[in-house]
Amino acid sequence: MSLLIYGRNTCLEVLKTDRQIFKGFVMEKTNQDILQQLKRHHIPVEVLGKHEFKKRFLGNHQGAVLDVEDYQTLDLQPYIESLDLKKNPFILMLDQITDVHNLGAIIRSCDAGGVDAIIIPKHRSAKINGTVAKTSSGAIEHVNIIEVTNLTNTLGYLKGKGFWTVGTDLSADKSYQEIIIDTPLCLVIGSEGKGISKNVKNHVDYNVKIDMVGQINSLNASVSAGILIFDILRRKLNE
Amino acid sequence: MSLLIYGRNTCLEVLKTDRQIFKGFVMEKTNQDILQQLKRHHIPVEVLGKHEFKKRFLGNHQGAVLDVEDYQTLDLQPYIESLDLKKNPFILMLDQITDVHNLGAIIRSCDAGGVDAIIIPKHRSAKINGTVAKTSSGAIEHVNIIEVTNLTNTLGYLKGKGFWTVGTDLSADKSYQEIIIDTPLCLVIGSEGKGISKNVKNHVDYNVKIDMVGQINSLNASVSAGILIFDILRRKLNE
Repeated sequence: MSLLIYGRNTCLEVLKTDRQIFKGFVMEKTNQDILQQLKRHHIPVEVLGKHEFKKRFLGNHQGAVLDVEDYQTLDLQPYIESLDLKKNPFILMLDQITDVHNLGAIIRSCDAGGVDAIIIPKHRSAKINGTVAKTSSGAIEHVNIIEVTNLTNTLGYLKGKGFWTVGTDLSADKSYQEIIIDTPLCLVIGSEGKGISKNVKNHVDYNVKIDMVGQINSLNASVSAGILIFDILRRKLNE
Repeated sequence: MSLLIYGRNTCLEVLKTDRQIFKGFVMEKTNQDILQQLKRHHIPVEVLGKHEFKKRFLGNHQGAVLDVEDYQTLDLQPYIESLDLKKNPFILMLDQITDVHNLGAIIRSCDAGGVDAIIIPKHRSAKINGTVAKTSSGAIEHVNIIEVTNLTNTLGYLKGKGFWTVGTDLSADKSYQEIIIDTPLCLVIGSEGKGISKNVKNHVDYNVKIDMVGQINSLNASVSAGILIFDILRRKLNE
C-alpha cells in the first residue's frame, strides 16, 4: 500500500528514514534540495509546472509530494514485551480522537515530549494518512503507533504487565499533578466533545482532570494532551 | 458590522451574553433549545429544511447559525489602566499567529487557564471571524482581546507600566519553568514556522524555551501556548 504525503518538512523528514519512496513530485523552481536528494537515491521524480502541480495536488503541498510506503502500526504485545519496564515507559492512549489535525498535533507533542508510544483503536479513530503525517510535521517518523481492537482489553493487558492506567475526565476529583510518574504509565486522552468513553473511564486505575479557572473550561484535545505530556516531562526532568 | 457564527456551542454561548443577535437560522428538527431561546428573546429566526440549510451555510454548522454583532476588540491603554497590577495580571501577546484554528484554540486555553487578555497585531494576524469563534467553542465571549498597531511599541508601553515581558524562542537558554510569575507578565507566543519576530525577541526582558526531548522538537502553536498558560496557572494555584 502506498500513501501520498505532502509538504516540505514532511518530505525532508521521510528522506532521513528507511521508508520506501516510490516516486517524488516537485514543483519547478522549488524544493531543489528535495529534488537533488531524490535523484541521488535514484527515486523516480516528476518536475511539474506550477499550474499543473496545483491541478494535480490539492491542499497545502508546498511544492513537494512523495508517494511512500504506508505507515505501519505496531502490534501491542511484542512492543510491550520489548520495553524495559524499569525505565518507566509512558504510553498515551487515544480514545475517539477522530480529527486528523488533532491526531497529527498529538503525534508531534509525543515526539517532543518523550512519549514512548501511542495506542489508537482500529475503529472510531482518525486514520494515519497524509494529513496526519503533514500535521505531525514529520514527527510521525519518530513515534511508535500501536493499533488495537479494544481499548478496555488493552487496559487490562497493560495493568497485568505492571502499568498504571490513568484516564482524563473533567469531573475527576484528582488533579493531573497527582499522576504517579515513577511507574510504567498509560494515560488515556478522550475526544473534546465526549471525553473518554464510560467503559474506559471505569477500567482505568484512576482519573485526573486539568485544573481550570475559566467560564467555558474546555480545551482542544491536542492542547489537553500537550499540557499533560509536558507536565509529566517537566516532573521527570526535575527528578 | 455583523458576523455569522456557526455551531451549537458557539450559538448557546452567545445567547448567554449581551451581544446583539440580528437573526438566527436553525435547521428543522435540530437545536430546539436554541430556537426556543431565540423566540423568547423576540429575535427573528428562520427554520430551514436540511437541504436548504446545507446549501446556504457551508462548513460544520451543526444546524445552528446566528447573525451577530461583530466582536469588538479593546484598546490597549484604557484596558491596562483599568487593571489592578497588584493582582499580577497575565497577558498573552500573539506574534504572527495567522491560522484561525490556532487562534481559536488559544482563546479557549486563555479562558480556561486564567489569562487576563490577549494582544494581537492589526496586521499579520488571523482576524476574529466566525471560524475563530467556533474553534474557541464560545470562549471568545469571555476573553479580552486587544488589537494594537505595533508589538514592539506595545512591549515598551507595558514595561513602562511595570510588566515583565517574556518571549518564547527555541534557542533560548532559560526554561519556561524560570518565568517569574509574581509580577505583571506579558508572554509572547510566535508562529510555529518562524517563532517570534527578531524585533520582538530583542525587545522582551528575556526569552524562554519549552524543554523537549524528541527528534523534531517543534510543537503546534496552540499546543505551545497551552503548555505555557497551564504551567503558569499550575504554579499560581500551588503558591
